[in-house]
Amino acid sequence: MRIARFSLEGNVAFGVLERDQLDIIVGHPFGEVERSGKLIPLAQVRLLPPVLPSKVVAVGRNYAEHAAELGNEVPEVPVTFLKPSTAVVGPADPVFYPGFTHDLQYEAELAVVIGRMCREVPVERAADVILGYTCANDLTARDVQRGEEQWTRAKGFDTSCPLGPWIETDLDPADLGIQCTVNGEQRQLGRTADMVRSIPELISFITEAMTLLPGDVILTGTPAGVGPLNVGDEVAVTIEGIGTLSNKVFKRD
Amino acid sequence: MRIARFSLEGNVAFGVLERDQLDIIVGHPFGEVERSGKLIPLAQVRLLPPVLPSKVVAVGRNYAEHAAELGNEVPEVPVTFLKPSTAVVGPADPVFYPGFTHDLQYEAELAVVIGRMCREVPVERAADVILGYTCANDLTARDVQRGEEQWTRAKGFDTSCPLGPWIETDLDPADLGIQCTVNGEQRQLGRTADMVRSIPELISFITEAMTLLPGDVILTGTPAGVGPLNVGDEVAVTIEGIGTLSNKVFKRD
Repeated sequence: MRIARFSLEGNVAFGVLERDQLDIIVGHPFGEVERSGKLIPLAQVRLLPPVLPSKVVAVGRNYAEHAAELGNEVPEVPVTFLKPSTAVVGPADPVFYPGFTHDLQYEAELAVVIGRMCREVPVERAADVILGYTCANDLTARDVQRGEEQWTRAKGFDTSCPLGPWIETDLDPADLGIQCTVNGEQRQLGRTADMVRSIPELISFITEAMTLLPGDVILTGTPAGVGPLNVGDEVAVTIEGIGTLSNKVFKRD
Repeated sequence: MRIARFSLEGNVAFGVLERDQLDIIVGHPFGEVERSGKLIPLAQVRLLPPVLPSKVVAVGRNYAEHAAELGNEVPEVPVTFLKPSTAVVGPADPVFYPGFTHDLQYEAELAVVIGRMCREVPVERAADVILGYTCANDLTARDVQRGEEQWTRAKGFDTSCPLGPWIETDLDPADLGIQCTVNGEQRQLGRTADMVRSIPELISFITEAMTLLPGDVILTGTPAGVGPLNVGDEVAVTIEGIGTLSNKVFKRD
């Protein structure tokens, strides 16, 4: 099932994608999904971020080749960082090149959408707390990341977390192709099979410390090939079995 | 004006403290505060965190003596980190000693409560976006902080951010006494005048990257004297002109 969140004539709702139409969900998709049977053509709506996470917990250096390309070792303990809710934008939303960086970079990532409130989740029960998967771009001010000890500003700035286009709930994330293009040219091409830590391991590690809420998102790291973006670029993240998340980079007025 | 958030018989509201009573606010305190004139004795309510921040942005090593006691320099660029909404608890709420640390520590801090949505705030206009001030305890798993490059788990775990007891809106934060006691014994005693970066500088620095929302909180760093907590300890943060935030440390069942 593919679950999108959208706006139409000022109203916001979730819907289940059926070919080129959305079957509007009654309420929200956390729990039993109740379809209204009311169908809206996909072409008529504006897709929004498929969830509004209270927090995004991201993982650094979870692909060995990417760690190496930035001169880092694969860490003994996972590196986790937070992106705030104010960083989240949706598919086709503008991304703004921040004024405090000269090196904005893309990072294509598989995003896990949490389906229920959870804490201290054992590895073997991690699947129970997952609603589904979507595409993410972990936009990073690389120069700021190098210049500041904690990555709060480098990875938490406004529009630094595009998510979408929808949540795919029926998907085995173990070995999916993950690609990033800039203006149609391929820049990253990896497979989720190359993650250092699996999704269940990450969920267990994170929830050892903090409660995850329905709609919270985990970013699972980026494969090799990261690089710069410029104003005017169209950056697209495509994940096998999900779809494409595409955003254009703008200068803020 | 002192603004508290409280629950009474299952209802949650904000109120303005008048001696030992709360004058219930109509709606919320972000904007013009409208008092209902309906008074509730403070002794009858349960005080809640005075705000529910979408994010808490905290600043490390903002008192030189504290930086030195942990063997650190005062950073050239402020060190900022995020505590998620799931970390926030209120005055008198239990704090849980996390299972993944053996060195839980207190850090008394002045907290700034943001009053309006803001971005790219110049230093000279920072006062416009502040609703008021409250006490915070930036609880830290010191061993985890040393062992993990990013402080997400070390400072973002559940109950790691007690806030309260209320928001004081009429206060000059430039030179306030700030104290931490454990079981009544003084452990930290500092003055906000010793902050390396002022509150307006911090607001400007943070909002260069990210939008702050009404109710978001900035923690301004801790003075020297940090140290360990044990299960059963009562830890209290007192700030001149605000009041005392007190929490007991429990083991989770």
